This record gives sequence, C-alpha cells and structure tokens, in this order.
Amino acid sequence: MKIKVLHQIMEWNEDVSASVRQTLDAHNVYMINIMGSPGAGKTSLITGLIGRLGSRFNIGVIEGDIAGQIDAQKIAALNIPAVQLNTDGACHIEAMSIEKILPEFDLDHLDVIFVENIGNLVCPAEFDIGEHLRITILSIPEGDDKVEKYPLMFTETGCLVLNKYDMLPYFDFNETRVAQNYETVNPSAPLFKVSCRSGSGLEQLCAFLTGKITGRRP
Amino acid sequence: MKIKVLHQIMEWNEDVSASVRQTLDAHNVYMINIMGSPGAGKTSLITGLIGRLGSRFNIGVIEGDIAGQIDAQKIAALNIPAVQLNTDGACHIEAMSIEKILPEFDLDHLDVIFVENIGNLVCPAEFDIGEHLRITILSIPEGDDKVEKYPLMFTETGCLVLNKYDMLPYFDFNETRVAQNYETVNPSAPLFKVSCRSGSGLEQLCAFLTGKITGRRP
Repeated sequence: MKIKVLHQIMEWNEDVSASVRQTLDAHNVYMINIMGSPGAGKTSLITGLIGRLGSRFNIGVIEGDIAGQIDAQKIAALNIPAVQLNTDGACHIEAMSIEKILPEFDLDHLDVIFVENIGNLVCPAEFDIGEHLRITILSIPEGDDKVEKYPLMFTETGCLVLNKYDMLPYFDFNETRVAQNYETVNPSAPLFKVSCRSGSGLEQLCAFLTGKITGRRP
Repeated sequence: MKIKVLHQIMEWNEDVSASVRQTLDAHNVYMINIMGSPGAGKTSLITGLIGRLGSRFNIGVIEGDIAGQIDAQKIAALNIPAVQLNTDGACHIEAMSIEKILPEFDLDHLDVIFVENIGNLVCPAEFDIGEHLRITILSIPEGDDKVEKYPLMFTETGCLVLNKYDMLPYFDFNETRVAQNYETVNPSAPLFKVSCRSGSGLEQLCAFLTGKITGRRP
C-alpha cells in the first residue's frame, strides 16, 4: 500500500490527548501505544498481532520513526493502512501529531490502531498521546535490570511483553528479578512472555487485547 | 568503594561543555562519552576496558542513570572511583552536571574518565558534555536497521562498537548493511566488532583508544 509520511508537530497542548481519545471513541476505535528500546521488537510485535487479530478486527498502524519509513513499508506490505510519522529528531510521539494523522484513516472502518512509538525506554512514557492502552516491550538481550533503571516506562504500562523469550538460554537474564520489580511498580498489569519470531506466547497476549478491545464497546 | 550520588542539573548553557573540556585539558584528563540503547552493553564495555587499560591509565567513571546506582556499584567493586549521576527522569546527560561532578575526582591523578550516558539512542547524541571522544555501542540483538533509523547517534560518534558479536549466529543481522550505512554517515570513524562477555575484539578497541589518549598529550 502507498505510505503517507507526516512530520511531528512539537507544539504541546495537554488537552489534545483527551481530544484524540474522544475522536477515537466517537468512531469506536481502540488505540494501543507500543513502546520500548530500539530493537526490542515493536514492529515484529505489531506484524505478529496483525496476523492473529487481523481476521477479527480492522487494523491501522501509525509508525513513529525519527527518520525513514522502513517499518511502515513492512506494515503496508501486509495490506494494512499505515501512516509513517517522522519526528525529525524528536525522541517521542506527541498527541498533536496523532490528531493530525487520524483523518488519514477511514475511522468508521477501523477497530484498532497500533502506534509504534520511537525506540526509547525513557521519553515516550511521559506523553499521553490519546491511547487507550500502553504496551511496553522489553527484550531478553536488554538485560534484567531495566525495570529498576527506567521505572516510568514500566509503571505506566497496561501490560509488559517480554520479547525474544526464545533467546533466554543465551543470555544471563534473571526472569524473577524482572517479574518482581515489575509487580512492585505495577501490580495490576500482566506480563506476557513471547517470541515474536516463533510466535510463542502471542495467543495469550491476543486474548488479553481482544478482551480490552471488545470490553469497552457499547 | 563508596559511591557518591549526584543529581542532574537541567539548566542549559552552551559554554559549559567548552569549560568542562578546558578543566579536563588543564589536568590532562581524556573524557570518553559512551552512548547506546538500554542494554547495548555500556557498563560491560567500561568494565572490559578497565580490565585492559587499567594497568596503563588511571581511570574514573561517571555513571548516568535515571534512577538507582546499579552500574556505579559494579564499577566501584573494581576499586575504580565512580560517581553516580541520577538524572531523575531526564533522558540524557548535560555538561552542567559533568561540571558539578568533576571536583569529586582527584583530576591530577586521573588519565581517563568514562561517562556512561543514559541508555537512549536518540537524545544523548544532541548534547556535547565536554567529552574528547564519543563511543556509540550497537548490539547485535537490536537489529541492523538502527543506523538508518537513529542517524545522529552514528554521525556524531568517534567510533562504533558492534557489541554481542558472539550472538550473530542467533539473530537475523546483516553486518554489511550496518557497515555500509555507518560509512555513509560517518566515513572516517572506525567500527569494532566485540563481545564484552568473551572479550573478543576489545584489544583492537583498546589500541585505538590508547592512541587517542596518548596522542593528544603534550
């Protein structure tokens, strides 16, 4: 599919995230903000979710990147409507950009929008972009100390996806440390152990997301 | 060793980085700013370099983290003077904080200061903290598209360290893609393939750094 490329608006307005959510709610569209380090597997997670949820829900994707459109091309190749948001250097997505992008989609015929945020375990967590749910991805190779070192990203999320779980034998990664630290800062949110490459664990995550998406419908 | 913990100063002053460099030069101290994604291996690189350069140079370390002092504890366990800089949420280190920290070291008896920046492939690249050299670390599990997606971090560095190179067989990572993209944006800076875990490749990096450190002495 053809990819529309938009650029980030940096003007900040705290009412905008609420306005974005109102627009989405008016069209019954559920927006999921996916965050994590560079290379944690955000795009792979989105393509894996499209493969499993795409028969039930109409999905659109907003791909945030500082530069380029590598990820949007991967999504468009799946025949899914994708908009590339280039932040031109900025380290996170803001609600103003989402507000500008939404008219690019046919919201009446969408159920879900995945937003892939900039690869960054710090700044994106500070910005409500109008999403209904946040997913934080942490991958095994990043190490087991990340909840302690980047707490906000784990405190503010609706669930934690522990990706590249098939790589566990090759890295010195203490799962218990992560699970305990995560439970301490975010006791009510679930943790899913997945491999986006093999697909393991994605069914459980899809069940959780399906419940969230359908649970709030009128 | 006892760890001093300081907090980030957010006031910005573009003269401060030059002032930091002057102070370091007056004491003949070479400062290296180490940057990369969360979990790329910054602390492991520093401990590996301490093991190989510590007999020739007196080394100090500034550990930047949003919260906690996990990494500074690892450095102090090596009996190396370490100062923990907590940015309290901020996504990068600024020169003002370095200026405040330098008096914590006995600069007359130091040759090298390693600064471990916040784990972030975006924002730290925008800030001159008074360093003489930048090292960007990219690890194999992060994927081979990072130079294209986060260009500034690779354009502004003095060398690129491709870490977790021993993991290459387990990931779909095209070395040539990274090398070519890196050469395009930064043709004069070398690339080192290392495994901080096994130590492979660190000798070549140490030879490069030794040349840099000694090359500028009076």
